[in-house]
Parts: sequence; structure tokens; C-alpha cells
Amino acid sequence: MERTLTIALPDAEIARRLSLPPDGVRTIVWDLGDPDPDVAIDLLVLRYMIPPAELRGLDSVSVRVVQSQTLGFDGVSESLPAGIVYCNAVDVHEASTGELVLALILASQRGIGEAVTAQSRGEWAHAQHPGLAGKTVLLIGVGGVGREIETRLAPFDARIVRVGRSARTDARGEVHGMESLAALVPEADIVVLAVPLTDDTRHLVDAEFLGRLRPGALVVNVARGPVVDTAALMDWLAASRGRAALDVTDPEPLPTDHPLWSLPGVIVTPHLGGHTDAMAGRVDRVVREQVRRLQAGEAPLNPVLGG
Amino acid sequence: MERTLTIALPDAEIARRLSLPPDGVRTIVWDLGDPDPDVAIDLLVLRYMIPPAELRGLDSVSVRVVQSQTLGFDGVSESLPAGIVYCNAVDVHEASTGELVLALILASQRGIGEAVTAQSRGEWAHAQHPGLAGKTVLLIGVGGVGREIETRLAPFDARIVRVGRSARTDARGEVHGMESLAALVPEADIVVLAVPLTDDTRHLVDAEFLGRLRPGALVVNVARGPVVDTAALMDWLAASRGRAALDVTDPEPLPTDHPLWSLPGVIVTPHLGGHTDAMAGRVDRVVREQVRRLQAGEAPLNPVLGG
Repeated sequence: MERTLTIALPDAEIARRLSLPPDGVRTIVWDLGDPDPDVAIDLLVLRYMIPPAELRGLDSVSVRVVQSQTLGFDGVSESLPAGIVYCNAVDVHEASTGELVLALILASQRGIGEAVTAQSRGEWAHAQHPGLAGKTVLLIGVGGVGREIETRLAPFDARIVRVGRSARTDARGEVHGMESLAALVPEADIVVLAVPLTDDTRHLVDAEFLGRLRPGALVVNVARGPVVDTAALMDWLAASRGRAALDVTDPEPLPTDHPLWSLPGVIVTPHLGGHTDAMAGRVDRVVREQVRRLQAGEAPLNPVLGG
Repeated sequence: MERTLTIALPDAEIARRLSLPPDGVRTIVWDLGDPDPDVAIDLLVLRYMIPPAELRGLDSVSVRVVQSQTLGFDGVSESLPAGIVYCNAVDVHEASTGELVLALILASQRGIGEAVTAQSRGEWAHAQHPGLAGKTVLLIGVGGVGREIETRLAPFDARIVRVGRSARTDARGEVHGMESLAALVPEADIVVLAVPLTDDTRHLVDAEFLGRLRPGALVVNVARGPVVDTAALMDWLAASRGRAALDVTDPEPLPTDHPLWSLPGVIVTPHLGGHTDAMAGRVDRVVREQVRRLQAGEAPLNPVLGG
């Protein structure tokens, strides 16, 4: 008979939602910060958007595999105790994040932010806005999120220029390498950041990058806050040289008194990323697959660190 | 030699932009409300979004063909003097209006309005929002605007149910007839109104229609304000039974003290419709084609009333 697996879930809601069949599986509700559990955990599902530093708390707990609910894992390697396999959440947030990018681009290009602000004053503020058709979109990052963005952008009659880590050609055409980025930036009406945060991408958008952009260009960040140099971005916005739509910020969450909130031409959304009513079902699918793999003695899905 | 045509343009900017070649064409800047011109006008281009009642002023002016800058022409037949051919603006606003519909749907479904409001208070208000993937969109109106909406909706993993005047099958599949509408309304998460305003569509969305919708459904109106019964919509919104995104209103513009501005779950945009930086080039293309046709002795493009 198979050994019983212990699966730790971060709250009662996800436990109820998953309702893992009891055959060979023991489900406990345990979250980092709770008193250490008295059992060895085979699979620990982290709560959504847990700060990576909390993973240090696992050094006194027996855990084999950790399943995150996020795709990015910047900061995890610094905090993850040795011997634990960390799996990121693939195919959970990409489609919703692609959806959000279109929401941010269209809201910025079509004056939805201005309209909502005017609405609060009961003001009918008809004006012309730039639109998306005919614009050049520089999409930086061609991974899972980049692909979902590109798919949704396709019918809007925009020109899409893609930049990845290295130059190549894929089924959708040319991908420029990062070494071409400086030359491509001046062509962009809209820049979309969809890269993981790494040493290479930290402050990718800095004063020099912003200085090469066309007047009025839009920077959309759904990656991680530090991909943009916030100080440089604030100077650029304050001078009305361009616009931004930011779902991630540095620092994050943005403190109430931060000057970025009220600069001209900026929309800040609170890391909505993949957080829609489609998320729960996609997380459940990943967790069920991990349980199946552990029961079958297979390697876990999407291990990105540890082990 | 050809007779010289007189082309009246509503402002100096469009005259400069078009710069019609002088061969056989005399261009004047004349707008309704100016003193009557001392020449017979072959083609009068109306200013954008002119109230139809102003067309009564043409009864003392000699005009052959009127070119509107809008697609809808509700109210024009009641005011257009006899003997004048009225042409609407086809292929000018459809793509931009399709773009706006996606902007309104995504802003509503992804919490952009809430984020902009929270931003004004410096508040990081993370929450889950419904998203667009997996939702059923009931698209009412399958003309030029409807087609552009459908094209842009296609990659968002939503189910699109189309309703036209009569049931038929086209290249994209089934179009339901208006007689099926009542049965289809309960399936919709999102309703998009893209019909012309006629006696048949006035108050198409009334208390009965709204009463059949799912709790939390979204009504998007980019057609004309009176396609929705505003009083019924306000009751429905005030009871938090659903949400709305309205680019057109009844009355329009919405007066500052109108209660609709501040009801829960509503985004009001000021008839942004087709008004992007792509519009001017598309208007110019239509005007140049009308001039060419008049010079060639051909029938004008898109005559919808008069003549």
C-alpha cells in the first residue's frame, strides 16, 4: 500500500474547494506563521503573494515540495531552506495577466482614467485620445505572459515588436534580442514589460531608456516593480514626457503618501495581475496534478529551485 | 471643362488638413450657424457630433450633398430639408468603437475604475475581480461596429452570442434574431449594445430586460443613450443588481447633477466612441472619395437619407 501523503493547504477555503479524496492523502490547513505542524509535509501550498522572506520559517519544518501560487520567484532563492523543492505556478496567471495588459493599454490610450476622474466630479469631459490602432507596441518578454499578451493584442491593428533574451525566429515571426533594445525603444508608442525580475532586468527601464522614448509614450509594467527605476520614472512623468500604467510598483504596496500616486498620466493598479475569478480553478488544477505526481512517485511539476 | 465644385468644410483645420487640390474645386470654410454662404454648395461636410436639429438651418442654403462625420443618423430625417442627400460616415468610427468596447469591458471586469478611484486616495486596494475569460458576451448588433467588437473579443476566451435583426448564419457562425433576445438575456455575463437607435431599439434595455440578467451582469452601451431606459437602469444599479459602462447616455451630455454619475458599479465615458487620433485620416479618406465621385459625376458614397 502507498504511503499516506500529507498535503498542507494555507486556508480552509482552498481545502474545501479542493476536497482532495482521502485515499492515501491527509490534508491539513497550515500556513507559514502558524505554530510548526507535528507532521512531515509532502506538499505545502503557499498562500497567494506571500512575501518570500517568510519562507525562512520553513527551516524548522519538514517539507519536501513547496507549490507557490505565483509565477515569479524573485527573492525566493535567498530565503528557501536547503533541501526543499520550490515549484512556481505555471498556467495559472498568464492569461489573466495578458487580459490585464490589454485593460491597462486600452484604459490609458482611450482616456478611461480621465473619464473616471471626471465622473467623480459629474463632468462630461469629451476629448480626443490616442487609441491603439496603428501604434507600435514594444513587448519585452516573450514567455508565457508575453504570449498571452501578444494573442490578445493581435486584432487591434497595432504593430507588435517583440524582444526576448536572445534573437530568434518563432512561429509568430521575429524576436529581437536584448542587445537590440536600445535601438528599438525610439520606435515605441507603448512599451510592455513582461519579464521576470532578475539581475539583468532590474532597472531595465531607467533614465536612459525613458529618455529614448517618444514624447507621450506609455510604459506598462505587469512584471515586477524593480524592473522600472521608480525615481527615473517619476522624473519623466512629472515632466509630462510620457505616461505609465503600473500593476506592480517599487516599493510594493505603494505607501499612501508616495508621490507616484498623483503624478500626471499614471494609472496604478494594486497588483491585480492574475487575480480574477478564473484563478482558483487554475490553482486547483496545478495542486491536483502535484498530488497525482507525488502519489505516482513522479517528479513534481515546474520545479524551479531547490531539490 | 468640368464645372467647379464648391466644397464647404466646417473649420480651417480640416480645410488645411485635406488641402484639396484646386483643380475644379473651390473650398470654403462654412459651418451651420454661420451667415448663409453666397454660393451653392455641392458637398457640405458637417462638424463632428452636430446636433441633428441644426440641420434645419439648411433650408435657406443651397446644398446638394451633406457628409456627416458620425455613423448614427437618428434624428436627422426629422430635420433635413427636402432635396438634400445625407451621407453617413462609414469606416470612420467602427474600429475605434470596437476598441472602446474592449476598453470598457476590461476596465469594468478588471477593476480599473475602482483602482483609479482608490489611486486618488493613495489606497492600494487589492481585490479579486471577475475577468473576461470564460464569460458569455451577448453582442446585440452585428453591423460594422458589431463586427469590429467581435474581432477584438475573439482572443479573450469568452463565449460570444450574437443577436441581429433577423436570425441567420454568416461566416462567423450563428446570428440569433431579435425574437430570441429575451431567451438569451439570462445567459449573459456581459451585454454589449451596438445597434442604431430606431423605433425598434429605443428602450430595448428596459426594466424587464434588466430583470432577466444575472446578478452582477455588465451592460455596455456604445450605441445611443435612448437604447437604454435610463430610469430603469438607475433603479437596477442603485439596487447593486448589476454594473454598466456607458459611452452614451440619455440625456447626453449627462448634466453635472444627474444621479447616474455616482451610482455604484457604473463607468460613464463622454461619448469617446470613435474619437481617437485615427479619426482624422479616416474622415479625410471619406471626404476625398466624395469629392472624386462628385467630380466624376458618380453617385455619392453611403447616401442614407434624402435625394
